[in-house]
Order: sequence, then C-alpha cells, then structure tokens
Amino acid sequence: MSTAEETGDDTPWGEVTPEAARRLLVAAVEAFAERGYHATTTRDIAGRAGMSPAALYIHYKTKEELLHRISRIGHDRALALLEAEAGSDGSAAERLAGAVRSFVRWHAERHTTARVVQYELDALADEHRTEIIELRRQSDAVVRRIISEGVAAGEFDVPDVPGTTLAVLSLCIDVARWFNAQGSRTPDEVGALYADLVLRMVAAQK
Amino acid sequence: MSTAEETGDDTPWGEVTPEAARRLLVAAVEAFAERGYHATTTRDIAGRAGMSPAALYIHYKTKEELLHRISRIGHDRALALLEAEAGSDGSAAERLAGAVRSFVRWHAERHTTARVVQYELDALADEHRTEIIELRRQSDAVVRRIISEGVAAGEFDVPDVPGTTLAVLSLCIDVARWFNAQGSRTPDEVGALYADLVLRMVAAQK
Repeated sequence: MSTAEETGDDTPWGEVTPEAARRLLVAAVEAFAERGYHATTTRDIAGRAGMSPAALYIHYKTKEELLHRISRIGHDRALALLEAEAGSDGSAAERLAGAVRSFVRWHAERHTTARVVQYELDALADEHRTEIIELRRQSDAVVRRIISEGVAAGEFDVPDVPGTTLAVLSLCIDVARWFNAQGSRTPDEVGALYADLVLRMVAAQK
Repeated sequence: MSTAEETGDDTPWGEVTPEAARRLLVAAVEAFAERGYHATTTRDIAGRAGMSPAALYIHYKTKEELLHRISRIGHDRALALLEAEAGSDGSAAERLAGAVRSFVRWHAERHTTARVVQYELDALADEHRTEIIELRRQSDAVVRRIISEGVAAGEFDVPDVPGTTLAVLSLCIDVARWFNAQGSRTPDEVGALYADLVLRMVAAQK
C-alpha cells in the first residue's frame, strides 16, 4: 500500500490524537485494505505501526473499535463536505456541482479509506452499523434536498428524485473503487467531469 | 448469505460442470463475500459445499483458482451482455439504453458475485489479473463505441467520451454494492431508471 493517500491531507487522520492512536488508524486502514478485515489481526496492525499489541490496547480495545473509528471519521467528513456545499450561496445547480466536486475529490484522494469503509460495513457491530447507516441517510438527505430545491425552482427536471439522488451518490462513491493515483485524471479533473455529468442527469438549465 | 442471487438464474453458475465443481463455486462466492478472500480457507469452502477438502482438490488446485474461475465467468458474462446489446439493431440511444439495462440487471441480480469479483481483484495471480483487466478493457471499448457512434450520428453531445464511458460503467457496476434484494426497487426498475439517467448524461436527442 502506497502513501498515495497522504497527498490528500497534510497529515492523514490529523483529527486523531495522540500520535500513537493516529498511527494505529493509518496502519489499520492499510492492513484492512490489503488483506480484508477478517484476515487482519490486531497484532498485524500494531506491527505495521511499529508498536506492541499491548501498546495498541491502550488506544483501542478491539479490532472492531478501529474499524468503527475509521468508518465514523470517514462518514463524518464526507457528510460535512456535502453540508458545506449545500449551505453555500448560489443556485441549486451551483450547489449540486460543488457537492459533487467535493465528494468526488474526497473519494479519489482518500480512496483506500473509502474502500475499507464501504466494503467492510458488514463487519461493524450492530450498534455501530446502525450509527453509520444513519450518517449515510443524512448524506442522502443533503443531496436530495438540493435536487428537490432545484426542481421546485424550475432549474432541474427530475422525474425520480430519490432514485436520482441514489445514482448521484453511487457514482461519486464508486470513484474510490477505480481511482488510481497514478492514472491519467487528477481528483479535481474527475470532480469537474462528474459535476458536468450530474448536471446533465438533473437536466439543469444552462 | 441468502440465496437471493439464485433468483437471477434457473441454476447459478449453470455453465460449470460437473455438479460438484458448480457447488464449490457457489460456496466460494458466499465464503469470499462473507469473510473476504484472505480469511477464507479451502477447508471452509469444501465444508460449505458439504464436501471434504480432498474432494475440492479434484476440481480446484488452489483457492486462487476458484477466485479466478468466478472472476472469469463473471466478466465473460458481463462482456457478452454488453456485446449483445451493442450489436443489436436500433439507434445509438436504443443500444446504449439496452446495454445499461442489461448490465445493471446483471449487477443487481448477481450482486454478491459482482462484489467478490470487484473487491478481490488484487488477490488474483498476476497473469489472471492481466487477463481480467483485458476483459474489462473490452467492456469499456464496447460502451465507448456505442457512445462514439451516437456522437458521430449527431444523436449525442459528449465532450469527453472516455470519461463518460468510465462514468457510465462505474454507475452500473456500483449497483452491486448498494443493491438489496429486499429493497424497494427491482433490478428491472433500477435498469430503467439508469438507462434514462445515462441518456441524459450523453444528451441524447429525444
């Protein structure tokens, strides 16, 4: 696993303190992405972070707690990005394009984290999965509201608002699956392409 | 893991013979989907199929051979569906809509298989991954050709044909991630919604 994700932020997982707890999260993301959650042990994660298993247990009681923290921080961040764009000034088209650009950029830059979060949802404990599903419902509601406002304002023509919302979010999330930091498109370029495609999906007035 | 996938075909993996080899593939898909490739042993797979590990080795020499067979059959089938629609009569819009409906239906009905195939690509041996990537390149070429033909015929307005092709395929593939057989939309309904959204993405003439 490369450090490609580290290009997206000055310090990945900078919100996690102390430093040892942050390093363990970074190591857990890499280990889960490479081998899958179930094939990874807390010993593997501690080893990647250059720590002993005992040092890991000071910060995280279980492997599931690591997955939950990764998933929670990732979803909180994605929701905050969408809410910032939804609450900005501008037409529905400008806000929808901004939300898509921002959401795509996050999934491109943090693609390893996003893959772990998406593909290992079933490995979360029931109460944690319920909490994450609620955050996803909120992200869906933010995008649905922008689209609904555009329809009400006569800016968009959308026969199926819930279905189109689902498709817009799915299109952006799947960037994490195929995005390659060594590929020909930068996160910003994919964001610009996708913003244009999404405005076409909602038949935005030019 | 439910048998929801079995609703998509009379006999899942019916192309695989003999029957013991077919049952082992079904068991491998379920095991990989639940626990991930690396956390699954050939003993787990044999046990799910009601066989001994020795009986498994008659049909598959390694766990990787099982993943390769699953991935190969899945990709062959998806490519064949796209080629059938691309080669049908009709305008570019009709063929593109048909390809999207067919590709979406496959990813919805066979969502467990599609997830394994997508998420475990890195677990394939190098020569097998190269082979699968070539099949994906061919699927991309089929869709790109329909879009290019539509542009040439003046039916579509697409500034970035490779980028739009990538987005169309990504949108359809991600159905496998979120599709829920107990959800409110059937595979055909998702296919119809997505065909409409994709025709909007290419600005098809009405």
